[in-house]
Amino acid sequence: MAAAAAAAANGAGGGGGVPRPTNPMVTPLLTDLYQFTMAYAYWKAGKHLDRAVFDLYFRKNPFGGEFTIFGGLEECIRFIANFKLTDTEITFLRSAMPTCEDGFFEYLSSIDCSDVEVYAIPEGSVVFPKVPLMIIEGPVAVIQLLETPFLSLVNYASLVTTNAARHRLVAGKSKNLLEFGLRRAQGPDGGISASRYCYMGGFDATSNVAAGWLFGIPIRGTHSHAFVSSFMGLDDIIDRTLASSDGSNKCEDFVSLVQNWLARIKDAGSLRGTFRETNLSELAAFTSYALAFPNSFLALVDTYDVMRSGVPNFCAVALALNDMGYKAAGIRLDSGDLAYLSVETRKFFRAIEEEFGFIGFGKMNITASNDLNEETIDALNKQGHEVDAFGIGTYLVTCYAQAALGCVFKLVEINKQPRIKLSEDVTKVSIPCKKRCYRLFGKEGYPLVDIMTGEDEPAPKVGERLLCRHPFNESKRAYVVPQHVEELLKCYWPGTTSEPREELPSINEIRSRCMGYLDRMRPDHMRRLNPTPYKVSVSAKLYDFIHFLWLNEAPVGELQ
Amino acid sequence: MAAAAAAAANGAGGGGGVPRPTNPMVTPLLTDLYQFTMAYAYWKAGKHLDRAVFDLYFRKNPFGGEFTIFGGLEECIRFIANFKLTDTEITFLRSAMPTCEDGFFEYLSSIDCSDVEVYAIPEGSVVFPKVPLMIIEGPVAVIQLLETPFLSLVNYASLVTTNAARHRLVAGKSKNLLEFGLRRAQGPDGGISASRYCYMGGFDATSNVAAGWLFGIPIRGTHSHAFVSSFMGLDDIIDRTLASSDGSNKCEDFVSLVQNWLARIKDAGSLRGTFRETNLSELAAFTSYALAFPNSFLALVDTYDVMRSGVPNFCAVALALNDMGYKAAGIRLDSGDLAYLSVETRKFFRAIEEEFGFIGFGKMNITASNDLNEETIDALNKQGHEVDAFGIGTYLVTCYAQAALGCVFKLVEINKQPRIKLSEDVTKVSIPCKKRCYRLFGKEGYPLVDIMTGEDEPAPKVGERLLCRHPFNESKRAYVVPQHVEELLKCYWPGTTSEPREELPSINEIRSRCMGYLDRMRPDHMRRLNPTPYKVSVSAKLYDFIHFLWLNEAPVGELQ
Repeated sequence: MAAAAAAAANGAGGGGGVPRPTNPMVTPLLTDLYQFTMAYAYWKAGKHLDRAVFDLYFRKNPFGGEFTIFGGLEECIRFIANFKLTDTEITFLRSAMPTCEDGFFEYLSSIDCSDVEVYAIPEGSVVFPKVPLMIIEGPVAVIQLLETPFLSLVNYASLVTTNAARHRLVAGKSKNLLEFGLRRAQGPDGGISASRYCYMGGFDATSNVAAGWLFGIPIRGTHSHAFVSSFMGLDDIIDRTLASSDGSNKCEDFVSLVQNWLARIKDAGSLRGTFRETNLSELAAFTSYALAFPNSFLALVDTYDVMRSGVPNFCAVALALNDMGYKAAGIRLDSGDLAYLSVETRKFFRAIEEEFGFIGFGKMNITASNDLNEETIDALNKQGHEVDAFGIGTYLVTCYAQAALGCVFKLVEINKQPRIKLSEDVTKVSIPCKKRCYRLFGKEGYPLVDIMTGEDEPAPKVGERLLCRHPFNESKRAYVVPQHVEELLKCYWPGTTSEPREELPSINEIRSRCMGYLDRMRPDHMRRLNPTPYKVSVSAKLYDFIHFLWLNEAPVGELQ
Repeated sequence: MAAAAAAAANGAGGGGGVPRPTNPMVTPLLTDLYQFTMAYAYWKAGKHLDRAVFDLYFRKNPFGGEFTIFGGLEECIRFIANFKLTDTEITFLRSAMPTCEDGFFEYLSSIDCSDVEVYAIPEGSVVFPKVPLMIIEGPVAVIQLLETPFLSLVNYASLVTTNAARHRLVAGKSKNLLEFGLRRAQGPDGGISASRYCYMGGFDATSNVAAGWLFGIPIRGTHSHAFVSSFMGLDDIIDRTLASSDGSNKCEDFVSLVQNWLARIKDAGSLRGTFRETNLSELAAFTSYALAFPNSFLALVDTYDVMRSGVPNFCAVALALNDMGYKAAGIRLDSGDLAYLSVETRKFFRAIEEEFGFIGFGKMNITASNDLNEETIDALNKQGHEVDAFGIGTYLVTCYAQAALGCVFKLVEINKQPRIKLSEDVTKVSIPCKKRCYRLFGKEGYPLVDIMTGEDEPAPKVGERLLCRHPFNESKRAYVVPQHVEELLKCYWPGTTSEPREELPSINEIRSRCMGYLDRMRPDHMRRLNPTPYKVSVSAKLYDFIHFLWLNEAPVGELQ
């Protein structure tokens, strides 16, 4: 309902009922100037309608890993479905390109993406270097205008989805993962995108209310240190009454009930001496928060001192809530040695369970936050800890370990003529031709290899032996007998009667698909340490063609 | 005009004529859920109108440096000037917080920021750790709602402005710096913010058209590799005519003119043997681009081979353009050894100047791009290079060297009672009290030290000796006799007759101010290697108070 409301607010859009991009700033001007100057040069040369095919792909998996998750497709489709330059935008472009002829701006006013075709791997898929995530075909001048927005929409989306998936892998399936990155993200929609794509990559919830509103992602939050320190003491609490959970009775002085419990904890045999006076500002803040949210009381316990103040104060409030029929939700640790503190807190909770016969108190939820990342979670796992949920912000959303995915957008064919971009660096040579791409599965059900073929080559067949070649390394090749074959790219725009357009699935469907794909991968490709590279190949015919074209285009050197 | 158009498109906004935030996604829901749950708990406890003072500050300068530039203030002011929850947003919040009472949502509907005061250091200033960039005062429940959006608007803005300023410092004032990061930025408004704040921090232009439109930043761009490889050969060029610059004559076959020049270059004494056949797709692309933009022909020369194809092809086109009265703009290198290639290209240009008596050709502009950052520019400087302009993308806009600035928002006073947040880590202890902050200048005109005092303490006076103390380290203190004193924070919202609100200056004014501030700093604070930390201090009175409060709040430990 929420997501629907937001979609309605964004307007239904003009293109086949596809809504506009989530961020209203994503317009045809969100591009590099050279896309417009090139469009003019194409137009001037009469080449603007030349039919071009571009591949959008990346060259290297991020974070030292051997897999990537593809994100950002839906936004690209929303963008092209609604692509149209407004009069105001055209006026601006005229001022920015004053030497260009009027006819060009008339042409710009006329263009939309009805003549553009987009083939793509489904969003949320596990993907690999060099294989196009998207193949975009259409008039060369129009496709150039799409390059920068597409890269801007896919690069970060895929990077942060992959980062989230890696955090899920290291944390394990049983932990709750909460994304807390809005305040440290690279600007407002860095934050909104992060929340969306982290959920897609396997997080359970976000703190970001706007993301909850826009995408229907579960949102979570309790209180901060400021809330705790805003209380001076128990006198700050004016209304001390609390009705019991079932409404059958009412506690007139919940504050005293909490204080009684604190005294009992202090005197309980196994806890005696573990703490002295707890901080009363903190006790007041916890009590007040519990009065506001008796059904979901979760306390941040490290404003003054975790073991000597925060945890005992929390337990007193939780036990008082229990008297009134409410179950506390747990604590959050936001500083210090999280392994040690979670273990000590767990001991304290177990002692409460034993001392007061409170079944289940020992299993109280412990959330940890504070500069967590893949490495620190891995370290916590190795040390041993008692954390049930991780709240992760800065390093997750800014992708500290890898600044950018580095997707590129390369011309591979124009007017049916294959094109190649050379480079001194062999990893930067592009793979020419409009291609088809397949994933081949082996006997054990795992994907074995991705293969790219020319457009007109026959598809690989189940049970038939096939030579897969490394695109650039002559000696790397292998025969494969696939047990199952999946064509990777499907038609997302505009679709025809014979090849209808793929629907854009909901975020929850994409998330489930992503989890499913990750489960199907052979574990050695996914491990953190020295993962095995997944193989990406071309057909023998495409291999030969690449190398023919390469020799044709490269100048012959001369040693002097 | 462009920026004005965009501002008009954004709507004038409701708050004192201040326009809405640039990104329409910046709404009151762009916050962490806990800000709303805390607001409810405050409301429930009758504390929501308690008058709170929060400091927004950072703890550590980024990028291993000893300075930071403050960015993002204007967006914060735009945000609060227009702060109002819509009915749709309230409906969403009701669904997200189903246990909260109706009265709370009525309260939320009623709030705006008319009762909030904002004091801030001017945007574009050089700033230092611990000193508040902004002091925000108002009803505690409202101020909490501002925390996340303010951090989200300031954190990245300040980080990327600082990164841009560092790039300017290492490149030197004479170089042109172009921001090319849109495609690698963390999402669309990561890109737009990057363009804006890099310009503020000292860049000359951006490739991002939307940023040009929104902020009036100069935009630049020519063509990509795809443009080059989209041409098959010279036959692609249909209209070969070019009128001369002054309109006095017309070349009927500009392609032949280019080809003639290429032959002459090849045979020119000192160039003979430096190249054989150049790539004809490339020559066609360059010629075509020159026909479209004869006044600003700049060619990307590394699609096939820089020295054996790109540079000779460029020179042939540039010489042909010269015959028609046009001056070519230069070349761009986007791969390979930029130091070596720029030096070789310069030699080639000088040889052209000599061979053909073309005065000034040797000084032709060389732009370099491809994964540049502060370190690589520094390395190029040390190796020696001939680059006139740097195009910088990924590492600049993603701030690879430092993921986040880590600004925080801490409660320092409530209902006139000072508050402190403790931590095991002394750098995380907050400085209590509503403060005033001053910059003290020495005899040589350089800033010497920033000092924070209690609100009611007298201001430091020129010529009067003053004790400046490190806030946490007892032994670090120094007497200062300031020659000049500047109060750092000014009133930005809402302003009164006695203390009127500061105007929000244009981006160009902020940029000039920033350049001015950087020039005024003592050079040893600004150097890349082992910069001297700039001193940040508190008054003796504030020092004593901090430590009194600290001892008061911290529980006494017990060694066991």
